[in-house]
Amino acid sequence: MLSDLYRASLSLLTDFYQLTMAYSYWKQGMQDHEAIFHLFFRKNPENNGFCIAAGLETALDYLEQFQFTQDDVEYLATLKGHDNQPLFETAFLAYLKTVRFTGNIDAIPEGTLVFPHEPLLRVQGSLLQCQLVESALLNIINFQTLIATKANRICRAAMGDQVLEFGLRRAQGIDGGLSASRAAYLGGCSATSNVLAGKLYDIPVKGTHAHSWVMSFDSEISALRAYSESMPNNCVFLVDTYDTYQGVANAIKIGLELKQQGRQLLGIRLDSGDLTVLSQYARNELNQAGLSQVKIIASNDLDEYEIAQLKQKRAAIDIWGVGTRLITSYDQPALGGVYKLAALRAPGQTWQYKLKRSEQAIKTSIPGILQVARYLDHHDFFAMDLIYEAGQENKLSLNSHLSLHSLLIPVMQAGEYCAEYPSLLQIQQRVSDQLAHLPESIRALSTPDIYRVQLDNELSLRQQQLMAQYNC
Amino acid sequence: MLSDLYRASLSLLTDFYQLTMAYSYWKQGMQDHEAIFHLFFRKNPENNGFCIAAGLETALDYLEQFQFTQDDVEYLATLKGHDNQPLFETAFLAYLKTVRFTGNIDAIPEGTLVFPHEPLLRVQGSLLQCQLVESALLNIINFQTLIATKANRICRAAMGDQVLEFGLRRAQGIDGGLSASRAAYLGGCSATSNVLAGKLYDIPVKGTHAHSWVMSFDSEISALRAYSESMPNNCVFLVDTYDTYQGVANAIKIGLELKQQGRQLLGIRLDSGDLTVLSQYARNELNQAGLSQVKIIASNDLDEYEIAQLKQKRAAIDIWGVGTRLITSYDQPALGGVYKLAALRAPGQTWQYKLKRSEQAIKTSIPGILQVARYLDHHDFFAMDLIYEAGQENKLSLNSHLSLHSLLIPVMQAGEYCAEYPSLLQIQQRVSDQLAHLPESIRALSTPDIYRVQLDNELSLRQQQLMAQYNC
Repeated sequence: MLSDLYRASLSLLTDFYQLTMAYSYWKQGMQDHEAIFHLFFRKNPENNGFCIAAGLETALDYLEQFQFTQDDVEYLATLKGHDNQPLFETAFLAYLKTVRFTGNIDAIPEGTLVFPHEPLLRVQGSLLQCQLVESALLNIINFQTLIATKANRICRAAMGDQVLEFGLRRAQGIDGGLSASRAAYLGGCSATSNVLAGKLYDIPVKGTHAHSWVMSFDSEISALRAYSESMPNNCVFLVDTYDTYQGVANAIKIGLELKQQGRQLLGIRLDSGDLTVLSQYARNELNQAGLSQVKIIASNDLDEYEIAQLKQKRAAIDIWGVGTRLITSYDQPALGGVYKLAALRAPGQTWQYKLKRSEQAIKTSIPGILQVARYLDHHDFFAMDLIYEAGQENKLSLNSHLSLHSLLIPVMQAGEYCAEYPSLLQIQQRVSDQLAHLPESIRALSTPDIYRVQLDNELSLRQQQLMAQYNC
Repeated sequence: MLSDLYRASLSLLTDFYQLTMAYSYWKQGMQDHEAIFHLFFRKNPENNGFCIAAGLETALDYLEQFQFTQDDVEYLATLKGHDNQPLFETAFLAYLKTVRFTGNIDAIPEGTLVFPHEPLLRVQGSLLQCQLVESALLNIINFQTLIATKANRICRAAMGDQVLEFGLRRAQGIDGGLSASRAAYLGGCSATSNVLAGKLYDIPVKGTHAHSWVMSFDSEISALRAYSESMPNNCVFLVDTYDTYQGVANAIKIGLELKQQGRQLLGIRLDSGDLTVLSQYARNELNQAGLSQVKIIASNDLDEYEIAQLKQKRAAIDIWGVGTRLITSYDQPALGGVYKLAALRAPGQTWQYKLKRSEQAIKTSIPGILQVARYLDHHDFFAMDLIYEAGQENKLSLNSHLSLHSLLIPVMQAGEYCAEYPSLLQIQQRVSDQLAHLPESIRALSTPDIYRVQLDNELSLRQQQLMAQYNC
């Protein structure tokens, strides 16, 4: 829960223009017009054929706690315009204190594979409320979806081996570490080194010792022996502080001592050098010493490309520790999710559909109240998705497909949760279930095929009509 | 203050191995050995000749609040080893609850230009405490230093124009937005769109309205007029919702209405299309209408390279709104700062110097208790830096240089602040003061010259001796 970590509501975690618009809607008497916004992305991360939806629970948690405190409005009262007069009237600030998020959210559950242009969230509520929550929703969903997707790429490259997330020290700030740990676990990682993430999100935590442990003793062997005595049930040795070959020999020596005592060396960690050569060497030495159950863990600037190469070169690595390149999604550190107005109605009126035009066709938004249908083929593989107007399910044709289901489900009604939250482990399971139904050509780690996402004819026609209208 | 935002101490914001090592030091009776750690980076961000030190106040704030709550130790008590027995003894958890950070910090002040291998922080304290705080210190300092440096690159490309930080929605999580806003302002930005950052860090906030404002009205002109009526003292219009040429015409129409009423259109914002052509067109139209004081603001995937190009093409842009590529340091989203043990002494003993060997010479650490001297030449330009043993100031020679000063100053003693905090604005001023003393060839935005950082002879000798020792 955000409230376990943050002191107050995060209502001010918003772009300033959301507040100036909120004020202006209020001044125009439009604050209670009902709006539909969709949150979606337009482009998969480089080299990936899909994204993994993530961040929903955090986002809903944020919405449920949304409110402006006295302290918040006192701050807003200090803001001045270019004439040095207050920007916001006192009556508006009093009104703001009464604002909660009381809208409805339909969303694609976390762990679902999603594709460009599909609404991950449909937000329906007062224009003013929907606008105020835009920035935080984007921040939360963009980042967790990005990291879940990246983590999953790394896990796919590791082909079933455990991947440990070790990124805290290189993460983009405190929450850049925390919520990335959540997303990485959801996306397929086995554990994190981040203890606070472990506590907040119930993620297994892993780790043993650093170079500094070894450096704090007169010799490496005495450092390893001391560690094994102090922490007998979590014994993994980092072996590259001075020289990896020597480190492996020392680890084996202690490993054999432990074995004699009926205890167990769990693993060794390689953190530098040629990981293929060193892991093969270490595996061989360990096996010859009768320590074949000792795992080899590798770290050092790993990502999916590096892991795939090491796999190809038959590096003898059992467990992968991945830091910087996972926690920041290093080769593409942002997902460009957007939040677009799609329909609006004044009290007692009918919906007016809304479109944002763009010179780039891909950036023209889809007007309507959207839902996504996923079609499965006869082998239960994902065949295509259709974006259509919610409520028009009966008009959808099945063609040659066996079955379809709609992806967005109601998760919040009138500002209250209305769904069961799965655990992160259940979400992780959903990811692997879904991947089993995705054609292999789309799962590829480079130049994947493009999954078919189609716009329903009715929506397409509406989009064209509105575009024509804005052209004249 | 972190405590304004976070509910509790962030003591669990650490890598798990810090806790297993802390436990093992305690088991070995080494918890009160006194240690020296240095925090430094090894490589400037791509294409930049320096970094801007940032994050110190946040880091010290974290240290001052450091403590394990009952809740924290209860969580730690649940952690099990591979034998399913608790990892930590109860007596250790009781001890943890008494731990505060009571060490000394010497640091290079925020806003100082810094170079590879120079300690930004020297942490002196109990081995156990120093180890527990490593991960969070790295997280905070790495990220803020990265973003301050990136923001400064963008500001240099903007050549004195205002740069506004608009990145919240694409930031890496909540704090990926918040602390990046702080660092961006410190590095030279004029304002942020992030209201919570504005409140927490006293940064000017800026923004007016989004496309959705315009889409909420029947026509663009009525949307702009309504906005100008509602918010007369903060009137900047986004003009590309449907068609930028039409948008400029509409903005001018309202601008003239405002002028007649004795009010003022402050600016227009371009957010898509060919920013050179559109800005020149808009400037011309505005001038011809007698609205030459109206500023042109541009946004849309800007960074230092894009801004430099637009400047070169004589785009008529006055103010730059920069989001994704600033807030994530898109082309290099992590700074690889590290934290290395450099000296250790048992109670009553003398310092033992510590070295981490590496096959890569650049990764071999510097043993000692380090200080950095900056030499100025006769024109008061930075000439070179020297890393030397703290306390050996009297041995430093001036050669042909006019003056030198030492960069690390005491900021925390026995866990208490012992320095005055400058405001962010003062730090921003320090950055520009320092830049004025940096040779232009090192300030270049691509392939800058390498600034000379030298290791004092005595330290160099010590490093070689220790390396030789570990070789045998």
